[in-house]
Amino acid sequence: MPVNLTEYMDHYITIIEQEIAKQLEKLEIPKPLKDSMLYSMNAGGKRLRPILLIASYEAFAVDYHKVLSSGVALEMIHTYSLIHDDLPAMDNDDYRRGKLTNHKVFDEATAILAGDALLTYSFEVIVNDPLLVDKQKIEIIKLLSKTSGPNGMVAGQILDMQAENSEVTLQELEKIHELKTGELIKFAIYTGAYLGNATKDQLQYLEEFAYYLGLIFQVQDDILDVTGDEQKLGKRIGSDEKSMKSTYPRLLGIDGAIELKQRYVARAKNALKKAKVEDSYLMDLTEHFSKRDH
Amino acid sequence: MPVNLTEYMDHYITIIEQEIAKQLEKLEIPKPLKDSMLYSMNAGGKRLRPILLIASYEAFAVDYHKVLSSGVALEMIHTYSLIHDDLPAMDNDDYRRGKLTNHKVFDEATAILAGDALLTYSFEVIVNDPLLVDKQKIEIIKLLSKTSGPNGMVAGQILDMQAENSEVTLQELEKIHELKTGELIKFAIYTGAYLGNATKDQLQYLEEFAYYLGLIFQVQDDILDVTGDEQKLGKRIGSDEKSMKSTYPRLLGIDGAIELKQRYVARAKNALKKAKVEDSYLMDLTEHFSKRDH
Repeated sequence: MPVNLTEYMDHYITIIEQEIAKQLEKLEIPKPLKDSMLYSMNAGGKRLRPILLIASYEAFAVDYHKVLSSGVALEMIHTYSLIHDDLPAMDNDDYRRGKLTNHKVFDEATAILAGDALLTYSFEVIVNDPLLVDKQKIEIIKLLSKTSGPNGMVAGQILDMQAENSEVTLQELEKIHELKTGELIKFAIYTGAYLGNATKDQLQYLEEFAYYLGLIFQVQDDILDVTGDEQKLGKRIGSDEKSMKSTYPRLLGIDGAIELKQRYVARAKNALKKAKVEDSYLMDLTEHFSKRDH
Repeated sequence: MPVNLTEYMDHYITIIEQEIAKQLEKLEIPKPLKDSMLYSMNAGGKRLRPILLIASYEAFAVDYHKVLSSGVALEMIHTYSLIHDDLPAMDNDDYRRGKLTNHKVFDEATAILAGDALLTYSFEVIVNDPLLVDKQKIEIIKLLSKTSGPNGMVAGQILDMQAENSEVTLQELEKIHELKTGELIKFAIYTGAYLGNATKDQLQYLEEFAYYLGLIFQVQDDILDVTGDEQKLGKRIGSDEKSMKSTYPRLLGIDGAIELKQRYVARAKNALKKAKVEDSYLMDLTEHFSKRDH
């Protein structure tokens, strides 16, 4: 069994990637569509969301198999959103994590369809999981559709586009990030705890935890765009500045952003204590998110 | 109560459109996203798929309320597929049903996101329907994700793009249409009958019916592109010819296509008889599909 966070993460990255391969390889579909889906699913993602989901589950229960389909579905939704965000009509990015984006390797039409397919397939994966009972599938699909749809991630992307080239307040910035990144993180934390049979009170504290964790993730993202190492990040730094994007460092300065992040870390850890899971890997993951360099 | 097919269809078009409005108006989301979703959902669709679903249900049961969420979800999926198909990277269409396409009224990014949002929201609508029990929701989501995802509609769109500017056989053509149009029609027919408590045998005959109905729909579409009235169709005719698309008239000639359609109509009606629902509106709808002029 893994003993420290790095081992823990490596251990589960392997397991998650095996499950991703299993779910995608079995698709008997036109080759360009499958290749395109596989390309982005294997383009160097850090699997942070499924790892969070597993860690949240393991704070309450054992045997991760029960959360594998949710983890893979979540990674598919995350990947679909990146494929569509990278399109010429959206952020028009040629590279992500140091690799060509989907529409640069294939073409725009295939990239759009690969995104559509991953989104739809994520629901298929959950609904066909033999380890979940109907009630659990319903609860997961309810949350997944809400967090990734017009009430969640898609709204975040629209607001993000609107915010470009305009001044937004700290409150507006947090709303964008809550929708665009935070909702999927909340799905990971909530679903893991729910399937692990956390109590109602614990679920509530974990939602609070997830809220701050999402913000930590985003503040650090913004900080790295100013101070990060291009090699490690696999992308150019300073791109937010160039696109006149509202970021924490722009609104608060670098020191202000770091200070805010520390405050969020304290609140996240406090929520874990209230949920009585301060001994879980969620604690280590909070530190990891706060200090990550890529 | 409606007495003939026209009244029947008008009756339910009103009810379906009220439900669409109800489901979309309640969304508290950024205005451009909501406007874009509403625009395409109200851009003159004939609501054929939800009507089929209701007619299939009413061949076995009463009280259409139970199938409304599935009907609206289906129309959302259909609409999302049209929005994405019309994009510059795909079919690059400026008009659909005589109206500007979504990306011409809004912009490409918003159109992509409106499609994503409608797709995701369709699952949310079903999973939150208080009139369905968990088992029914699961069965519907299982079928909806399969028919609209990489195994279904998305695969059809990829194959359709590959087939442009190349010769395909009649068999290949039918495979494309089965995936691209037929799968959603199968969903409509199957889900209606399933929720109406059809027997296993009846469900099987209805799947056969749906298969032929989908083909009738497509053959007629191809015939209209040669012989149709531009005013009624709301689009230019001859567009298939121009894009060198494989169609039934190109493969079989106009007379051959009409003859094939008649053969499919006979088979579809025969399947309805075997399912013992030859007195339902599904019979009239088969004729309607076969003879439609737009």
